[in-house]
Amino acid sequence: MNILIIDPTTTLDEDVGYYETLASPGTHVRIEGLCRGPGEVANFCDVAHAAPEIVHLVSTIGRDADAILINCFGDPALDAAREASCVPVVGPGETSMCVALQLGTRFSVVAVPEGNTEGWVRMQARRLGIEAKLASAIGLDLSAVQVAQAADEVVEQIAEVIEGTIDRDGADVIVLGCTAMARVIAKLRQRLKTDVPIIEPSGTAFKMAEMLGCLGLRHMHGRFYLPFDPENITGYPSCEGGGAPTDLTE
Amino acid sequence: MNILIIDPTTTLDEDVGYYETLASPGTHVRIEGLCRGPGEVANFCDVAHAAPEIVHLVSTIGRDADAILINCFGDPALDAAREASCVPVVGPGETSMCVALQLGTRFSVVAVPEGNTEGWVRMQARRLGIEAKLASAIGLDLSAVQVAQAADEVVEQIAEVIEGTIDRDGADVIVLGCTAMARVIAKLRQRLKTDVPIIEPSGTAFKMAEMLGCLGLRHMHGRFYLPFDPENITGYPSCEGGGAPTDLTE
Amino acid sequence: MNILIIDPTTTLDEDVGYYETLASPGTHVRIEGLCRGPGEVANFCDVAHAAPEIVHLVSTIGRDADAILINCFGDPALDAAREASCVPVVGPGETSMCVALQLGTRFSVVAVPEGNTEGWVRMQARRLGIEAKLASAIGLDLSAVQVAQAADEVVEQIAEVIEGTIDRDGADVIVLGCTAMARVIAKLRQRLKTDVPIIEPSGTAFKMAEMLGCLGLRHMHGRFYLPFDPENITGYPSCEGGGAPTDLTE
Amino acid sequence: MNILIIDPTTTLDEDVGYYETLASPGTHVRIEGLCRGPGEVANFCDVAHAAPEIVHLVSTIGRDADAILINCFGDPALDAAREASCVPVVGPGETSMCVALQLGTRFSVVAVPEGNTEGWVRMQARRLGIEAKLASAIGLDLSAVQVAQAADEVVEQIAEVIEGTIDRDGADVIVLGCTAMARVIAKLRQRLKTDVPIIEPSGTAFKMAEMLGCLGLRHMHGRFYLPFDPENITGYPSCEGGGAPTDLTE
Amino acid sequence: MNILIIDPTTTLDEDVGYYETLASPGTHVRIEGLCRGPGEVANFCDVAHAAPEIVHLVSTIGRDADAILINCFGDPALDAAREASCVPVVGPGETSMCVALQLGTRFSVVAVPEGNTEGWVRMQARRLGIEAKLASAIGLDLSAVQVAQAADEVVEQIAEVIEGTIDRDGADVIVLGCTAMARVIAKLRQRLKTDVPIIEPSGTAFKMAEMLGCLGLRHMHGRFYLPFDPENITGYPSCEGGGAPTDLTE
Amino acid sequence: MNILIIDPTTTLDEDVGYYETLASPGTHVRIEGLCRGPGEVANFCDVAHAAPEIVHLVSTIGRDADAILINCFGDPALDAAREASCVPVVGPGETSMCVALQLGTRFSVVAVPEGNTEGWVRMQARRLGIEAKLASAIGLDLSAVQVAQAADEVVEQIAEVIEGTIDRDGADVIVLGCTAMARVIAKLRQRLKTDVPIIEPSGTAFKMAEMLGCLGLRHMHGRFYLPFDPENITGYPSCEGGGAPTDLTE
Repeated sequence: MNILIIDPTTTLDEDVGYYETLASPGTHVRIEGLCRGPGEVANFCDVAHAAPEIVHLVSTIGRDADAILINCFGDPALDAAREASCVPVVGPGETSMCVALQLGTRFSVVAVPEGNTEGWVRMQARRLGIEAKLASAIGLDLSAVQVAQAADEVVEQIAEVIEGTIDRDGADVIVLGCTAMARVIAKLRQRLKTDVPIIEPSGTAFKMAEMLGCLGLRHMHGRFYLPFDPENITGYPSCEGGGAPTDLTE
Repeated sequence: MNILIIDPTTTLDEDVGYYETLASPGTHVRIEGLCRGPGEVANFCDVAHAAPEIVHLVSTIGRDADAILINCFGDPALDAAREASCVPVVGPGETSMCVALQLGTRFSVVAVPEGNTEGWVRMQARRLGIEAKLASAIGLDLSAVQVAQAADEVVEQIAEVIEGTIDRDGADVIVLGCTAMARVIAKLRQRLKTDVPIIEPSGTAFKMAEMLGCLGLRHMHGRFYLPFDPENITGYPSCEGGGAPTDLTE
Repeated sequence: MNILIIDPTTTLDEDVGYYETLASPGTHVRIEGLCRGPGEVANFCDVAHAAPEIVHLVSTIGRDADAILINCFGDPALDAAREASCVPVVGPGETSMCVALQLGTRFSVVAVPEGNTEGWVRMQARRLGIEAKLASAIGLDLSAVQVAQAADEVVEQIAEVIEGTIDRDGADVIVLGCTAMARVIAKLRQRLKTDVPIIEPSGTAFKMAEMLGCLGLRHMHGRFYLPFDPENITGYPSCEGGGAPTDLTE
Repeated sequence: MNILIIDPTTTLDEDVGYYETLASPGTHVRIEGLCRGPGEVANFCDVAHAAPEIVHLVSTIGRDADAILINCFGDPALDAAREASCVPVVGPGETSMCVALQLGTRFSVVAVPEGNTEGWVRMQARRLGIEAKLASAIGLDLSAVQVAQAADEVVEQIAEVIEGTIDRDGADVIVLGCTAMARVIAKLRQRLKTDVPIIEPSGTAFKMAEMLGCLGLRHMHGRFYLPFDPENITGYPSCEGGGAPTDLTE
Repeated sequence: MNILIIDPTTTLDEDVGYYETLASPGTHVRIEGLCRGPGEVANFCDVAHAAPEIVHLVSTIGRDADAILINCFGDPALDAAREASCVPVVGPGETSMCVALQLGTRFSVVAVPEGNTEGWVRMQARRLGIEAKLASAIGLDLSAVQVAQAADEVVEQIAEVIEGTIDRDGADVIVLGCTAMARVIAKLRQRLKTDVPIIEPSGTAFKMAEMLGCLGLRHMHGRFYLPFDPENITGYPSCEGGGAPTDLTE
Repeated sequence: MNILIIDPTTTLDEDVGYYETLASPGTHVRIEGLCRGPGEVANFCDVAHAAPEIVHLVSTIGRDADAILINCFGDPALDAAREASCVPVVGPGETSMCVALQLGTRFSVVAVPEGNTEGWVRMQARRLGIEAKLASAIGLDLSAVQVAQAADEVVEQIAEVIEGTIDRDGADVIVLGCTAMARVIAKLRQRLKTDVPIIEPSGTAFKMAEMLGCLGLRHMHGRFYLPFDPENITGYPSCEGGGAPTDLTE
């Protein structure tokens, strides 16, 4: 089985190592970034500029995959990618919340940054129809870079926020709302004094992609998702070579 | 007051006439189309390719407007446009549904095309948190072009669907879910045997844009909407002249 | 266009000045109070005693109007007024919440008095089907008279409550839940350190009345709203002269 | 125990017989009509004109009761009556729906007339927060008078509607949405081929009034319900003698 | 009328006294415990072990009753008991919440123990479709035994929690979420400085059982509830004598 | 990895073959039935009699598993099993619905039997908080045995029901609501003229069990789920040998 992971930024610096530790035998992983778009995905304007290239990748190199993962908790361009794809496409935000439903009564999302986490996560939960299951969505005053460095005080800060939301908001499942959190999850589980399940979104979505691929499940075309019609679009030249940096500005 | 209407397609053929009949004295209207993107907005992939250019227009010529209307019932890139704007931005789908809440107990949306109308409108209603107020969303087996030609048999077909949803689904407000419906609304009101309110989305959103501009109301930046940071984006050259057709493929 | 504003109390002391600053050219404003009913509208019993006279005004002098505004945030007798009217009738509470839906993800209502604000506003939001969008409803320990005097410390108190609900409850839109707040809104916007949109209910409902009148939209009769049948009522003599103080006790 | 039943019309023609067959030993029943207001309660304007007199009855002769029933399925002035009362006040619509919750998964309301039943009942269910439990609300094309006469063909018509909603809408509880239905319930239960529970609203609300009186439960004043302040009201002279026909027009 | 009260534990120590003070003249009360199952009902595993014996009691000695009460706030095996019964079966949790809907806008449940109260009560409210009406569910750090002893400091602790939830969570109805609370309710009402209604679950459910029996209302078989088929079950020998302690381990 | 599949009946006749075709390399599968309980799980009374033995199996042989699947779409005793387990426990109903959320906008469940499917599935969806995403739940007039035989006319009947619910109810995902449907899914996919995703519950739950085991995710104890305390239970002798038929009646 071939899983394509799309990093929806122009600054890809991740390799396949983490996913290979989770992969079933026989699963191959490929990661691609964008040739045009945002350096990081932090707001709706970043999503707007990532979307055309995500559609392009899905409809070109995505044809060789059995399942596709768009690797950002905010699930940029997920619906468009599904229209352009004939294999299942998953997003870490959506998958994590659906898995959380099975692990307890209410979940909290702990993410970065502080500003728009609550609104954005609430919108994602509402889109899935599960807003009432969201106990809280807490944005930490940290950058994704700080999270990825996984210093002890960062782990301590996240752990305290998690313990607080269990006590105060009635959460019995925690979703980490940032793909950079994969770097802290081991330390975090060691530190916490509770057996609360903690969902790491990238790994969880990766396993869901494998699972949907194995079960032969993908989205229907013709109702909510219509087929992508490239003839309807003008002004977007293809990136040659599947994600290679043929910048439009050239 | 200056209202900027963005037609989110590359095939703009509308003029300001309809809006000028609705405008308050002193309101000026400008309509702009996209220099790159979809020929029509029918699915999520079309939205994906309209989004960057909508953000560009909002953040350039939008600076001279007092309010902005993105003139497609599907509300493409509405959230991104709000991030890029310092004036209020409205969408016909969202505005029509919010006005419908004030005019009755449950509303039905009658739109084209048949395929994805129900799912798309339901998603828009859920995003606003008002899915329980949506009595039904019915996609007609007509093209937008057929609607715009407003032949008598088309008016008759729409009228019968409206009378059916009032009887069967308990709707007491009708929302026309396509901006082309502005061409049929006069005939439609004449034909219908009921006094049900029928909301024409483009005109309604235009008046809402005027109203928000008059009241000095616009979206907050810093919580759900963060500011647009053009420095974070690479690969999207500006369209010169505010929407002039400087195609990227050239 | 003629807008009739009904003050649902027997103690009218407002003039048309505020509305004329907001009115489009060509809009005429008339304000009428009740000849019998409550001195102020603070609870359900006050609403009960305002309702017959509101219906009377709507069905008499309301016939000369193009749209009617019942000017109390609690929206007293709104449904009955719509039955008795053949033009659109709006209420500041309902309109403000519907406009708030378009300006952010969740709104808070800041009102007076402390006692029943939360329950009442929640009931209004539930009636519209948007309770999940209500971040909080906070009743201040102030009288409407104190608010109307707009002393600096009152503005300061309201401002702090607003900043608190943005931080704590995730609100990104504020609705002022009292028509007396029109007196403090200018000072309040000046004082606040955030660009959060603040909806002043009377002015917003006034503009909505104009907009619905312009668009020719009014409530349907025959489904939720039936026509008013004065023959069915006994024991309520008409107030002569359209709201003149012909008290029943005389 | 003393139960006061208020018939919210000026055309009372019911006696205490039906309630005495249901009453526990020691319960006394009194029925009073209105001295001013509507001949029947069919729409919001009728409610508006019944409300002041309901408040008056509750706050005068209601002081001798242990519990009060406002005997109309539409629950007119229920909130105002609770403010004016120091004993529990129940309404047949609200009570029937709350009992229905305990008897199955989803309930249908079968009522007269055809026009506004669906919208009105849905509003009542939404007010209680249980709209999702309402399978359907069906208005029959019959008058309350026809229902009260209980002819065989009327019983047959109601029975067929009930069987239809069980099959089609998934209802497993039926609420009769009109107090006149007390006249047909015995025949109806005999006719139906199913053991579906059928809730007759007047009798059910009467027993709930007894139960709340027995348990010492009544509404709180100070949060949602404030105390009734007669000093705030002008223009409504008392009806002498507790409901006697001292018409205001004299 | 005969009411059967099932104590879903093997450690019954309650007599009929409390219920006889609430019973209408002519009502007879019988209480039975389980011959196998849990010593107390504190979690889902306890419910699992109480369920077969509850079904057995309902389908044997329950045949002589006019209504049945399963006397635990957690409502163990309520659905199965209804399938096995041809008379109405009520549970204190479900009944208390349905009565609470009629007594205010939002209710809080105050219960023991601290651990799983919030999650359990929320699940019960969601099952009824009324989660949005639950202001809060607070588990006290007390045992049921401590509650039953009703010491002054326990009453004080409960009273303070109640006053807190009214102020903080907007509750205007309180539900005591433990049948042992019947021992403290008199002292509690005396102590509280507010007139908030406090629902004692056992007595309330007892009166509801009487009411449903009087009205001839019971659950439908064939849709949600199918008939109990003992032939389908193997391995569960009957307890002889209707709940007598014929332990399976003998 | 070891997956334990519990068949919650006393009539197990399934082998591990189907699961081994889906299993990742290195996954071992064990299936166990009950030594006491129902012959089939068709109603709540059947669940009541399966529950104690499910808890017993989970807390004995379940200790050697990495994840546990209770293999019935009705999810019997799922909460109790989670309390008794220190590894993840999944149910096909719950898992299928959570996966369906990721594959479209609304799902329909097609199941047997006709009687209680709609109510039961709706209850499961409400428990998860996703009732609004359930387009319909349709019970076929077929037995599970008929489904398992997979005759062509049975496949045709199911296919027509699926096509009907897509057209009529707006479903874009189908969940088969019966584990016997695993026998028809291949024929069904071949027959259908649409690319709608069809979720087979047993296989999907099996893969979810593997996935949760791989990710180290299991339910928290101490909030909603408390630990199982066997000391609290009397009258349930252990089945020797982990599910061997030591019948209590002997």
